[in-house]
Amino acid sequence: MDFFFNPRGIAVIGATTNPNKGGYHILDNCLHGYKGPVFPVNPAYETVLGQKCYPDIASIPGVFDLVIYFIPAENLPETIEACAKKGVKGIIIESAGFAEVGAKGKTLQQQCLELAHTHGIRLWGPNCMGLIDAHSRHMFSFMYDDTWKTLLTPGPVSMIVQSGMLSAGFLLMILDRGGMGIRRICSIGNKCDVDETELLEYLLDDPETHVIGMYIESIRDARKFMDLVQRASKPIVLLKGGKSPGGMRAAQSHTASMAGNHEIMQYAFRQMGICQVSDVNELTDFLRGFSKTHGFSARQGTGVISFSGAGGIITADLLQQHGLNLANPSSKTLGRLKEIFPEWMPPAHPLDIWPAIEKNGLKKVYTHAIDALMHDDGVDSLVIHMLANRTNPELFEGLAQMKDELKKPVIVWLTGTGTGLYNFRMKIEKMGIPVFEEMDRGIAFLAAAQRYFIYRASRA
Amino acid sequence: MDFFFNPRGIAVIGATTNPNKGGYHILDNCLHGYKGPVFPVNPAYETVLGQKCYPDIASIPGVFDLVIYFIPAENLPETIEACAKKGVKGIIIESAGFAEVGAKGKTLQQQCLELAHTHGIRLWGPNCMGLIDAHSRHMFSFMYDDTWKTLLTPGPVSMIVQSGMLSAGFLLMILDRGGMGIRRICSIGNKCDVDETELLEYLLDDPETHVIGMYIESIRDARKFMDLVQRASKPIVLLKGGKSPGGMRAAQSHTASMAGNHEIMQYAFRQMGICQVSDVNELTDFLRGFSKTHGFSARQGTGVISFSGAGGIITADLLQQHGLNLANPSSKTLGRLKEIFPEWMPPAHPLDIWPAIEKNGLKKVYTHAIDALMHDDGVDSLVIHMLANRTNPELFEGLAQMKDELKKPVIVWLTGTGTGLYNFRMKIEKMGIPVFEEMDRGIAFLAAAQRYFIYRASRA
Repeated sequence: MDFFFNPRGIAVIGATTNPNKGGYHILDNCLHGYKGPVFPVNPAYETVLGQKCYPDIASIPGVFDLVIYFIPAENLPETIEACAKKGVKGIIIESAGFAEVGAKGKTLQQQCLELAHTHGIRLWGPNCMGLIDAHSRHMFSFMYDDTWKTLLTPGPVSMIVQSGMLSAGFLLMILDRGGMGIRRICSIGNKCDVDETELLEYLLDDPETHVIGMYIESIRDARKFMDLVQRASKPIVLLKGGKSPGGMRAAQSHTASMAGNHEIMQYAFRQMGICQVSDVNELTDFLRGFSKTHGFSARQGTGVISFSGAGGIITADLLQQHGLNLANPSSKTLGRLKEIFPEWMPPAHPLDIWPAIEKNGLKKVYTHAIDALMHDDGVDSLVIHMLANRTNPELFEGLAQMKDELKKPVIVWLTGTGTGLYNFRMKIEKMGIPVFEEMDRGIAFLAAAQRYFIYRASRA
Repeated sequence: MDFFFNPRGIAVIGATTNPNKGGYHILDNCLHGYKGPVFPVNPAYETVLGQKCYPDIASIPGVFDLVIYFIPAENLPETIEACAKKGVKGIIIESAGFAEVGAKGKTLQQQCLELAHTHGIRLWGPNCMGLIDAHSRHMFSFMYDDTWKTLLTPGPVSMIVQSGMLSAGFLLMILDRGGMGIRRICSIGNKCDVDETELLEYLLDDPETHVIGMYIESIRDARKFMDLVQRASKPIVLLKGGKSPGGMRAAQSHTASMAGNHEIMQYAFRQMGICQVSDVNELTDFLRGFSKTHGFSARQGTGVISFSGAGGIITADLLQQHGLNLANPSSKTLGRLKEIFPEWMPPAHPLDIWPAIEKNGLKKVYTHAIDALMHDDGVDSLVIHMLANRTNPELFEGLAQMKDELKKPVIVWLTGTGTGLYNFRMKIEKMGIPVFEEMDRGIAFLAAAQRYFIYRASRA
């Protein structure tokens, strides 16, 4: 599988000088990041993007073991034959026109698969957007948008997605929002050969991947998939498409996937600590959360620090709604908290720190309250509400380390406006603390993190 | 009640030249919008913000029937006496230090209430942020942030909130996001006299209010409240704080509210078409949705137009999850859709229009697909996915009118990045079509709208 991610040379079939076509962007993207030789292939050009262009695979003089294919589907069989002669190990097929368009395409896809197997060539796709590795900056995709060149940040999150929208548009949304580091994104399309299970195994073994997100419409080898999930030592966040009858029918025509009986898997997934979500923003928010959460010590209760009574009350209600306990701080902790509160308002939990702030200022109160709650044995996690436009983010400097050492997850619910909100959020995320703008989502994430870490501990 | 919203003159007790104090902002806010006379009261100053300042209520020469109070709690009884002599009709008490701080404050609050009743003076608050009317631009609140002066847009949404955070910070979040017009925001705090039920009745009768949002921690007169809700001809979106034991305890100390048994009310609310939400963003998203949704003809099925297979599949799954039907377009509709699709990809529902766009362009495809689905008798509502950075918003010009004429709600799920996303969203919202960035939230809203309009029709 490594040759897909770290090839010794790449040939791009369908490279073109026309920036409205995918073949242009595949080549352009390969040339920004990948350090090995890249060979454009297209009989119509002498050069493309400053690179010497070859009329066909056979005439390429250099060494390459990966081919990216972006010409009409019907030319794939002859391409596979040509690739076999050059010792190619894998072909990423980003063109459409295969199983997803009906019986004829299905036959073609099957024929190509058999041909490739005969020659020991692995196929990735077809009908996909290829792969991205943010650590090596290998962007083997026709993604049109150039912003990845500046916004793509290396990090621990890998994804396996069975959809172009989710690999490109979705990635842009993630990059635009910021705060999440990426390892690998694998768009598998019709997954005629390389599939979700093989990639899951590969990414579970990848030391740079710490969290795995998936959007899949079917699972080809359910038994092996389940087995991997059960043994996984990394959180897996799963968005399964085709859970409803309508969605299932649509999945069939989308990537020719049989969606399978979701009900059966649902229960098993939950038991195994796999985290299921139902829309794309939930998927990203949970991945970001897991990328910054490294343990959950024990099931006790969640501490809540808010700057308003209502914030604390709504959070307490949400905790119950998601099956978490509201912490019950010890009298020792309440005694410590009393030091910062005015006499007329003794501290109660959820902690509304506004009266304390009016007396002692933001810095002293947040620092003191966080320290008191985090060191209470009955507190297993902490929700902190922050006001972006009135708080100095440096105030939370030591918090990420504290949460990791104590294995007590911390999430922030942030309110504020405009660029002040953005800048504050980015600083807090950079410290390693996940920020949620949806209060409900943050609590749902905490509940998922607790389930996952408790499941993992139960197997240890 | 009108004198609170449209007073004949206002006295501001606690006006000050110190911009770090609430009394400064109350006066400043009153002077930006309110057209009648405003009298600052503070014995320490000759003038405040260019206005002549009076040492006490008694010495004000002009006419005023509203007082805004922002000095320590213990001075309220003597102030009520002084107000009675001047013919004041109402006092908005924005100071804290009453029932929420314990037995002593509770006694003081009760004493003030009785005194006020003796003199026929109504009390608003205490421990609140006052009121806002975006139509008249009356901002009778100590809200510190000046952005309301440029961002506050008149519209159909009114709110009753029992929390400072939710009236100020929350309003700023709404203004910052944009796309929602406001009528009135009423922060009722400890609601010792004017309460949620009286205001609900008042706003149900207000011709400029078309949608009502509430954050409340208790309902004082549950019987009357239920009765109003049952007869309401406007959607009501309710965020009820204190549903869990922990939240209920916190509500008691927050605004001295008894949260009551939520379980009992929950079922009744649902039966009456009232829409319950569980966090603040959900509250705003639903209010924005209802402000742009004016009918739901009949229960059929929801049409889905997406630019990706996965988008349609996830939406179909979400529809089922929220109890909505996926539409089953007629063969006539499918025939019309076929005109824009390439031959190799016949249209199927959910509609993935990408293949059609590649053939016929965005404008033709969106217009044709929307028209075909909206005029199908089996389609009762429509979800449209849009790409902000690649689509011209003008393309959707006639859509808001079409949805209102046909009484078929339309919601948009939008993806895109940066200012392109913001500008596109604002244009679509301005046309009168609600935009959701959370896919799940949009579908949850559609389900709530269907429940509300079907309940309303059942009573007609």
